[in-house]
Amino acid sequence: MNPVILAMPGNERVADALAAVLSFDRGAASVRRFPDGESHVRVESPLEHRHALIVCTLDRPDDKLVALLLLASAARDSGARSIGLVAPYLAYMRQDHRFHPGETISTRHFAEWISRRFDWLVTVDPHLHRIKELSEVYTIPTRVVHAADSIARWVGSEVERPLLVGPDEESNQWVADVAQRAGVPFTVLEKTRRGDRDVEVSVPDVARWRSHTPVLVDDIVSTARTMIETVRHLRQAMTEPPVCVGVHAIFAGAAFDDLRRAGAGTIVSCDTIAHPSNRIELSAAIADGVRALMPTSFREISP
Amino acid sequence: MNPVILAMPGNERVADALAAVLSFDRGAASVRRFPDGESHVRVESPLEHRHALIVCTLDRPDDKLVALLLLASAARDSGARSIGLVAPYLAYMRQDHRFHPGETISTRHFAEWISRRFDWLVTVDPHLHRIKELSEVYTIPTRVVHAADSIARWVGSEVERPLLVGPDEESNQWVADVAQRAGVPFTVLEKTRRGDRDVEVSVPDVARWRSHTPVLVDDIVSTARTMIETVRHLRQAMTEPPVCVGVHAIFAGAAFDDLRRAGAGTIVSCDTIAHPSNRIELSAAIADGVRALMPTSFREISP
Repeated sequence: MNPVILAMPGNERVADALAAVLSFDRGAASVRRFPDGESHVRVESPLEHRHALIVCTLDRPDDKLVALLLLASAARDSGARSIGLVAPYLAYMRQDHRFHPGETISTRHFAEWISRRFDWLVTVDPHLHRIKELSEVYTIPTRVVHAADSIARWVGSEVERPLLVGPDEESNQWVADVAQRAGVPFTVLEKTRRGDRDVEVSVPDVARWRSHTPVLVDDIVSTARTMIETVRHLRQAMTEPPVCVGVHAIFAGAAFDDLRRAGAGTIVSCDTIAHPSNRIELSAAIADGVRALMPTSFREISP
Repeated sequence: MNPVILAMPGNERVADALAAVLSFDRGAASVRRFPDGESHVRVESPLEHRHALIVCTLDRPDDKLVALLLLASAARDSGARSIGLVAPYLAYMRQDHRFHPGETISTRHFAEWISRRFDWLVTVDPHLHRIKELSEVYTIPTRVVHAADSIARWVGSEVERPLLVGPDEESNQWVADVAQRAGVPFTVLEKTRRGDRDVEVSVPDVARWRSHTPVLVDDIVSTARTMIETVRHLRQAMTEPPVCVGVHAIFAGAAFDDLRRAGAGTIVSCDTIAHPSNRIELSAAIADGVRALMPTSFREISP
């Protein structure tokens, strides 16, 4: 029997695409809120003796976690042999350190909640910084899918004379990788964070790339403060408006409009979080990750 | 050293009252959301070697659970010897059964999440139906505080010639208890639930109580459909508008206004969920529950 793919609300498109690429079945699940604010979940397809996976991207995670974990439990109670999680965006990766006394390492707690209810996890470019590997916090098998290749292909085919620009040191290695895959030059800026919404970007020397189209690449675009500051600087230093590429399009509050108003040219993102800027599809790459992690018992019996 | 009481946002008043009654210290904690929707929590008072408790009523639980569990973890990381939870309203008690295939018993999962992060739990009149005792699902010591005595005292002092009315069979024993404590008569109606918001109440014979003031009592007032139907019937059968008493004032959506418009007289509730109808304070009763559950090591050294 084919594995079954369930979608949390809002993840239907990715679930459909994965089912098509992998030749898995699409199952039905209902997730709703009672009037008192509690979640009610129900698996509506037979799962007995079948491998299952749930697609749920984890932006705004606090609003989703309870229902997601309940749905995983409902799948377990329905007799599923294994339950995987495909979370194109993985939450709580930035709280990977006790920055001040009285804090806790939220990354570890979130990983524990997921690890207790799922058998494996596939995600796209999680924000790995102090924690170098998901296996340091997730106790289940995990697979990281990289967007670099898909982004490089998009830049190569859609942008003329691109100059890749990374917004800070953290993104250095990552942007270099995209640039190398696309065969284009790159430079990296420096940033100083003063608060959630206050980021200062130091001035780089971009004058010698004046005839190129700057392409800003970052993994998570949340408040977009970093990109906005960088765009403002680049608009003064260069001729072409910067193309902005984000892997994960959170765009908190008015961030998207603010980025437009700051002078960004085309703004695109991967489809890890549903957003009007989505241009770069990752279903095929995610499907490879799922294939690598599906329990052996399934892979042995599948053609 | 005194135990420390922390409050989740919105629970400050109850935390203050408990600290006063118990002579515990009030500690500070910050709970906020990052722009991307993740919670940030921080314990701002020293907890090393101290017993701690967090006050967090659990109406609309999905919006609170992640931050609450993170705060408990932050308290643990700050060196607290024990961490208790005072949840005047306890969530997910009504999903105590797999009503349809594909569902899961949410009550058990919620209990597991709480039990893993806290050392003990005090709550007020949880909705115990198929699950008869919290110990069937909570693996930590729990204490149930009863509101019946406080409600009986309020009815005795505020209502003339009261007739207590329970909205259905489930509440029979409970309303009988309040009636007995208040020394007043009672009767119980029958209801048939057709959906979240659709409840039919069967007609009782209340004609012989015409000169009394009907007092409706229920444990949880959520959509208030049951109370509204009962009020409508009682307005036809009796002279005095019914007094409505709820232990837990959820009042989902426009339920409170609907109940008023249906012809309810005074509407009051216990202070387990902050609401304009709160009239019956339970801090002293909750404090008794906390005293009974605080770890022995504290009780031994306290006077």
